[in-house]
Amino acid sequence: MTHGIPASAPVRAHAALIGLGSMGYGMGQSLLRAGLDVTGYDVNAASLARFRSEGGATADSPAEAARDAAIVVSVVVNAAQTEAILFGPGGVAETMREGAVFVSCATMDPEKARTFAARLEASGRHYLDAPISGGAQRAALGELTMLASGSPAAVAAAKPALEAMASKFYLLDEAAGIGAAFKMVNQLLAGVHIAAACEAMTFAARHGLDLPKVYEVITASAGNSWMFENRMPHVLDGDYRPRSAVNIFVKDLGIIQDMARDARFPVPISAAALQMFLATSAAGMGEEDDASVARLYARITGTPLPGEPTSP
Amino acid sequence: MTHGIPASAPVRAHAALIGLGSMGYGMGQSLLRAGLDVTGYDVNAASLARFRSEGGATADSPAEAARDAAIVVSVVVNAAQTEAILFGPGGVAETMREGAVFVSCATMDPEKARTFAARLEASGRHYLDAPISGGAQRAALGELTMLASGSPAAVAAAKPALEAMASKFYLLDEAAGIGAAFKMVNQLLAGVHIAAACEAMTFAARHGLDLPKVYEVITASAGNSWMFENRMPHVLDGDYRPRSAVNIFVKDLGIIQDMARDARFPVPISAAALQMFLATSAAGMGEEDDASVARLYARITGTPLPGEPTSP
Repeated sequence: MTHGIPASAPVRAHAALIGLGSMGYGMGQSLLRAGLDVTGYDVNAASLARFRSEGGATADSPAEAARDAAIVVSVVVNAAQTEAILFGPGGVAETMREGAVFVSCATMDPEKARTFAARLEASGRHYLDAPISGGAQRAALGELTMLASGSPAAVAAAKPALEAMASKFYLLDEAAGIGAAFKMVNQLLAGVHIAAACEAMTFAARHGLDLPKVYEVITASAGNSWMFENRMPHVLDGDYRPRSAVNIFVKDLGIIQDMARDARFPVPISAAALQMFLATSAAGMGEEDDASVARLYARITGTPLPGEPTSP
Repeated sequence: MTHGIPASAPVRAHAALIGLGSMGYGMGQSLLRAGLDVTGYDVNAASLARFRSEGGATADSPAEAARDAAIVVSVVVNAAQTEAILFGPGGVAETMREGAVFVSCATMDPEKARTFAARLEASGRHYLDAPISGGAQRAALGELTMLASGSPAAVAAAKPALEAMASKFYLLDEAAGIGAAFKMVNQLLAGVHIAAACEAMTFAARHGLDLPKVYEVITASAGNSWMFENRMPHVLDGDYRPRSAVNIFVKDLGIIQDMARDARFPVPISAAALQMFLATSAAGMGEEDDASVARLYARITGTPLPGEPTSP
């Protein structure tokens, strides 16, 4: 836990927050609640207006948001967006002052994190590899889990923001990339467990089992997983509004496949899971809840699920 | 819970226990501790001698063990062994008295359970489909989980034994086969989660992560599963003595594949997991702990794991 590290500066910290999506917006609220001056940036003007109504400042580009900030928190979807925010036109590397820290929360290939860190650190700024987990609700409560790696200087510089955003902070190594790698291991398991839960639940439905009883029995048995317990209520309720979308795991299990292929390391279980997320996305459900993989199984087999039309 | 059902007979119950393996032996101890007269049968003479030393009686065949028993508990590996014990030469159906109950604990295709139940019930005996979960230690403590289905008469007749053996008793339906189907859904998930845990843990090792830290982070994150938490200490300790063997999941995921093919229901995630258990068995580790799937990944990729020789 960094929370034991003495505060580095008595002055009110100025932070920039790049990306006001479902996670980033809540993290911005947590930063404001902790008393930081926060300047937000997002491509969506409505998000910027809403953030101003909460007491945040806003800017027209990542570079402008990052000017004078001691801490720049980046909450975007992937490595490509992170690279654009850092080094693209209007990127923060142009304006971040020396000694400031860039806190990168996107899930990405560890090699990318290492590359970004080396390039930014060469210019005298710090980089904290800090993937997050926990969902939008915990983001807004300042109760995220962070799987971080970076230099002691990066951690110390980011401390006021880390305390505001995370209730569980794992500092896993002094080199960027290790946090990203831990996050990928978690995503491998999380993705497989969602797909397996959907396979098992529709298999149970196909065999005529009472699905609420299946949920009760499995969550009390050795077949349980965090994801089974968290996602299968969406199937029982027939409610596929996106808490986390199918396409997130198309992306994250895709990164696993790339990492595994580069390392000449076969990953047949997560490869099979990726195919099911891809099939669900291909069937038009990419932006719906990731428990929609159950609907894909149900539709191709004509198996009834709660709230779903039965096949002709 | 059946524990609320009034006791059916004030006389000391006589039970037969067929199969004194790691689970059955502990269940026999639990039955004796509860004050039942128990006659055991096993093909292994040493198990019989040990059971006599605990105060049990023994017999030379299932038929002899079942003579005069009100309850016959069968704790064998699969449907074929269950069928032989019921209807083979020296089987219990020859000697069970009318009104007695056969409690079948083997994991099997629900269709088999339905077939066995119909055939036994046609002769005036009861059949309780009662797959178990929990491992040898909980078997000896009388704290198993049972996923049961059967008629009220079957449950009532089996009650003294059920109370002695199980701390969690789910009565899921009045027809045999439903208990078996719930157990198969659990096994689908359990098997996938073990294989996924092994894939993720060796993937982490391949990327240079500290494995005890991976265990700490994952068990506190959304990637956790009951099986990850239970089996990965075996990998961290390099201890592959069989708590539950690889070949158990070769069998159980094999049943899933048969059921799924019969139902024209694709199960790509559990199909991939089965292939990894098969590969591990083919590499000579079939009778070792099911966490040995991690060793299979490690060996084919030259990844070091605790206690394992590194590849040349």
